[in-house]
Amino acid sequence: MINRPTLIISEKICRANIKRMAEKAISSGVSFRPHFKTHQSVQVGEWFREEGVEKITVSSAEMAVHFAAAGWKDITIAFPVNLRETDTYNELALKIKLNLLTDSPEATEALANSLSSALGIFIEVDCGYSRSGVPFPDHERTEHILNVIRNSDKLIFKGFLTHSGNTYQAANKHEVINIHHGTIMALHSLKGKYNNEFPDLLISIGDTPSCSLIENLSGADEIRPGNFVFYDLMQFKQNICEFDDLAVIVACPVCGIYPERKELLIYGGAVHFSKEFLEEDGRYYGLIVRYLDSGWSGPVPDTRLVSISQDHGIIKTSDSFLSTVKHGDVLGIIPVHSCLTTNLLRENMLIV
Amino acid sequence: MINRPTLIISEKICRANIKRMAEKAISSGVSFRPHFKTHQSVQVGEWFREEGVEKITVSSAEMAVHFAAAGWKDITIAFPVNLRETDTYNELALKIKLNLLTDSPEATEALANSLSSALGIFIEVDCGYSRSGVPFPDHERTEHILNVIRNSDKLIFKGFLTHSGNTYQAANKHEVINIHHGTIMALHSLKGKYNNEFPDLLISIGDTPSCSLIENLSGADEIRPGNFVFYDLMQFKQNICEFDDLAVIVACPVCGIYPERKELLIYGGAVHFSKEFLEEDGRYYGLIVRYLDSGWSGPVPDTRLVSISQDHGIIKTSDSFLSTVKHGDVLGIIPVHSCLTTNLLRENMLIV
Repeated sequence: MINRPTLIISEKICRANIKRMAEKAISSGVSFRPHFKTHQSVQVGEWFREEGVEKITVSSAEMAVHFAAAGWKDITIAFPVNLRETDTYNELALKIKLNLLTDSPEATEALANSLSSALGIFIEVDCGYSRSGVPFPDHERTEHILNVIRNSDKLIFKGFLTHSGNTYQAANKHEVINIHHGTIMALHSLKGKYNNEFPDLLISIGDTPSCSLIENLSGADEIRPGNFVFYDLMQFKQNICEFDDLAVIVACPVCGIYPERKELLIYGGAVHFSKEFLEEDGRYYGLIVRYLDSGWSGPVPDTRLVSISQDHGIIKTSDSFLSTVKHGDVLGIIPVHSCLTTNLLRENMLIV
Repeated sequence: MINRPTLIISEKICRANIKRMAEKAISSGVSFRPHFKTHQSVQVGEWFREEGVEKITVSSAEMAVHFAAAGWKDITIAFPVNLRETDTYNELALKIKLNLLTDSPEATEALANSLSSALGIFIEVDCGYSRSGVPFPDHERTEHILNVIRNSDKLIFKGFLTHSGNTYQAANKHEVINIHHGTIMALHSLKGKYNNEFPDLLISIGDTPSCSLIENLSGADEIRPGNFVFYDLMQFKQNICEFDDLAVIVACPVCGIYPERKELLIYGGAVHFSKEFLEEDGRYYGLIVRYLDSGWSGPVPDTRLVSISQDHGIIKTSDSFLSTVKHGDVLGIIPVHSCLTTNLLRENMLIV
C-alpha cells in the first residue's frame, strides 16, 4: 500500500541493467567496480554480488562505512581525500581494502602523516570535466604527489582515475565517444610514463554515458559507472538508455484535481525528487506513468511534473488524462535524476 | 569537530527571528501557528514554546507524527487531505487536536467516511498562487465542500486557509503588499459570507514574505510562516530579511584547491543543499562565509558556490581568498533555500 512518495524499483529491469554492464566489463576485459552512490541500497548491492561483483565505489566515507557493514571488503571512495575524516579512513582500512583519491601533494602528505594502516591511493586526473583532479597534463603536480607516495610506507599507489562527468552534457553519442577517447589517451600517456615503476597501476574511468554507449571499454583497466543501475529521465533524453531500461519511478498519491487549469496535485515535492529539472518548452521535474502493481506504463502523453515545492508537486496534463484520475489514486513519476531522488527516498523503497 | 557537511544553527539569530515574529503576532492580534517544515527540529521547536507558541503547522502526516511525539498537541497539516493516510489521521486525532485541509468535495466526502474521531478542517483557498486550494471565487465548490462538512459529525469547520506562495516570486516589497492585500480581501469576503453560521471561523495565511514585510497582520486571524525561522539567501536577495537575520549556514570541509581556475572543491553537494539556485551573472547555489566557532563572517567577496553534483561542490573565488584556504579548512555556505537544505541535513546539525 502506497501512502506517501515511495521509490519503486523494478527488480527485473535493474538486474538486467546490472547484468548488461557486468557482461560488457567481462567482454572488454576490464574490472567492474560499480559506483553504489546511485542506489545506496544493501539489497540492490546483493544483485551486483550475484553478477560476480566484489569491488565497489562510493562517494563518501559515510557510504563506505555503510557498505563495509554490509560485507563489502574492497571499496574506493571516489572523492578527494577529506583530511577531517582520517580517523574513519584508519578504522575502515583495518577492516577492508580501502582506496582513496588525491589530487594534491599537500593533502597526500597530510594524509600519509595521519595514517596508521596502509591503504590504496589513486591520483585523480582531470581530463576536462574541471570538477576535481590534477589537470592533465600537469606532470609536475603528478610527480610531486608520486614523490609523497614513494616516501610513505602507508600509501600504496593504485593508478590514475578520472570521472569524465562532462559526458552528461554531451550533445550526442559522437561527443560522448570523443570525450571517452580523449580521456583514455590522457590516462594512457600517464600509464606509459609510470608503468615500469608501478607495473600494477590501473586506469579507472567512471561515467555512465561512456560505459553505456561505448561497446568496447578495453582502453581502461577498471570501470566505475553508477547511474546505469537505475538510469533516469536525463539519461533517457540524452539517448544513453531506452525507456525500458528505466528501473525506478516514484509512486505518489494524488491529493488535488484542478480541471480549470488542467493540473493535478501530488504528494511528492522537492524533498522527494530534489530540484533537478529538464528544459524542453519550459522546465519540468519528471514524466508521468500509470503505476501498476507489477510495474508501470509508458509515459502519459502531454503530461509532466511542472512545478515542485517542499512536499507539493504540480502535474500539467490533458483533459482526457485528468478525467481518469481520482483523489487517492497513485501516479508514477519518472525522476529526472535518479541518484538524488534515491538519496531522498532511500528509507522508503519498494521492490517490485 | 566538523568532518562532513553540517548544518550550523545560530541559536541567537534563530531565537531573535522567532521572538520578532511572535511579538508581531501579538501586536497584530493574530494567532501564531508557525510552520515547522523549515526546521523540522524538536530542539528549535522548544525555542518557539519558550515564546508562548502552542499550535504548529506541518506539511505532512509524517511530520505531524514526529512533532506529536515531541509533545505538540495542536497541529495543522497544511497539505490537502491525502486519502491514503486516513489511518494516520485517525491515530493522531485520538491524541492531539488535528486540523486538515481540503479543496475538494469528493476528497472531503471520502475523508468523512473514513474518520473514526472528529478533527478540524480548513477549506484551502487559492488566492492566485495556483498550487492547491479552491480557486477564489469558486463559491459553488466552496458551498459543495461545506455541505459535506455540515453533514458530517466528524468534521469541524475551522475556516479558510491560504498560502500565497507567489510572494516568493514578487519583484519588490510593493508587490508582496499587493498580493497580501488581495489575499486578505478574498478571504474576508468568504468570512463575511459564512461568519454567521460559523462564528469561530478563522482566516489563516502563511507566507514568510508577507509575514516579514507587513507590519500589521490584523487582516488575518492566524499566521503560519515557516521559513523566517532561518531565512536564507533567496529571502535575503529578495530583501525580505537582513544578512544578520540568516540563522543557518552549512559548514563544509575543503577537499580541493585549483589556483589555475580560481576554484575550490568542498565536500558538500546536491545531497546536502538540494539543487535550488539563484541567477545573477550565472547560476549559483550559495554564498561563502568564513566559519568561526561562534558563528560566521559576512560573505566573502567575489566568491560563490557555482556548481554542485551529488557530493561535490565547486566554489569560484578570487586569487586573494584562494590563497588563504588550505586542505582540511572548513568554509561556511549560506544556502539558497534553507527548508530543503535543512531537510537534507536534519540528522547532522550543530547549534552554536
